[in-house]
Amino acid sequence: MKPQANPSAGPDPKAMAALDRVRIVLVSPSHPGNIGAAARAMKTMGLRRLFLVNPVGSPGDPQAVAMASGARDVLATALRCDSLAEALAGTVFSVAMTARRRELAAASLWVREAAGLAVERSATGEVAFVFGHETSGLSNEDLSLCTQWSPIPTDDACSSLNLAAAVQVAAYEIRMAAAVPAPPPAVPDAGDPVRHEDLEALVAHLERAALESGFLDPARPGRLVPRMRRLFARARLEREELAILRGLLAAMEKRKS
Amino acid sequence: MKPQANPSAGPDPKAMAALDRVRIVLVSPSHPGNIGAAARAMKTMGLRRLFLVNPVGSPGDPQAVAMASGARDVLATALRCDSLAEALAGTVFSVAMTARRRELAAASLWVREAAGLAVERSATGEVAFVFGHETSGLSNEDLSLCTQWSPIPTDDACSSLNLAAAVQVAAYEIRMAAAVPAPPPAVPDAGDPVRHEDLEALVAHLERAALESGFLDPARPGRLVPRMRRLFARARLEREELAILRGLLAAMEKRKS
Repeated sequence: MKPQANPSAGPDPKAMAALDRVRIVLVSPSHPGNIGAAARAMKTMGLRRLFLVNPVGSPGDPQAVAMASGARDVLATALRCDSLAEALAGTVFSVAMTARRRELAAASLWVREAAGLAVERSATGEVAFVFGHETSGLSNEDLSLCTQWSPIPTDDACSSLNLAAAVQVAAYEIRMAAAVPAPPPAVPDAGDPVRHEDLEALVAHLERAALESGFLDPARPGRLVPRMRRLFARARLEREELAILRGLLAAMEKRKS
Repeated sequence: MKPQANPSAGPDPKAMAALDRVRIVLVSPSHPGNIGAAARAMKTMGLRRLFLVNPVGSPGDPQAVAMASGARDVLATALRCDSLAEALAGTVFSVAMTARRRELAAASLWVREAAGLAVERSATGEVAFVFGHETSGLSNEDLSLCTQWSPIPTDDACSSLNLAAAVQVAAYEIRMAAAVPAPPPAVPDAGDPVRHEDLEALVAHLERAALESGFLDPARPGRLVPRMRRLFARARLEREELAILRGLLAAMEKRKS
């Protein structure tokens, strides 16, 4: 066998810093036990930052604590949010863990590649992996808020992983990606990535401009917004570009009045 | 991103044959729920052959069945054995999943490499992955029966995975090793690329709109045009997106007059 990188070797400060910039976001988890098991799965791989969007029950629930085993600190510091947008605020890259394939999907990558990309992006800011409800998964709206979709490869006969098992596989791939010899340098001249909330503001601005100019019929919104989201995700829009687009929209709006 | 193998692509007979030669052996599992959860973890990755060495409870236990979800058939066909030796009879290669490092250990490999080797060896016979008791792990005697030891990389602060979570990670790596290489997935919904002249027309339109709206000072054009060119190139703008952008610009220009 070829020599191996050692993903559990002692503290590699760079790898640890990458892991500390990864958020695990559970949207509407329906059972405290699953939250606890997910916390344990995270901690075994060195991830600590758990975000809970409208969970059923509390992370302090005895079942959550029992399933967390040695990861009670992850539960204790978990953040509750009222929406996925809130959980993604401040991130520069977000991966929706989903098996769904949709026409307007952002490009989808297997979890191994998505983890590699997330670790690369973590050099520029916070990143998130988003998991949906145990049976219904992520809504279309939630999916549209993420920059990347990623499935875990599964057998056709049984394609649904337990929530904590899915978190375990993703966390494992994130650790493997973080601890493997440094990723190739970022594309030269890569600008600052946009933050989630700034991208959302641009999308909202575009939609408003399209409505006010009469380009978009509110009764038949069609594909404009999803197409623009997909374009910006694929382009990995940068901060300066975003500022240009918003400035241009504002200037054009102002002129018309 | 580079092209990816597709580990969940349709039936690749060779990969399926490899998966059918993999045994998952649980030694002394102490809780039926864990047996059920392990069965589910296996089946999501296309593994079916579960061996139980002196389990507490039966695979038909209601808790096992509940945790197995769609993998009841794996439970129903699980084989009970009185010893690890019995479970390993007929195998040509066996991997002890353990974090322990001992002086007399067989060479140990990270689970990714161990899975790759096991899939290679499965061409010559049956192979096994062996998991120990939830808290005490595998005994020295059990370890000595295996050809290979393999740890899952973990964080020092929390190195103990839940049993089913460990089975999930190993099963995932086995599937990844067995299913590669397979045809890369079609890029979802790759649209028609824009033609050069259409892209130039868009850039010209943007520049005109920026000048007319006062956003761009003709005396100091700055980086607007080069930035927009770079963005569209990086995004590999598609024809429908270009049409949307031009339509929106035209609508906003019209409104102002």
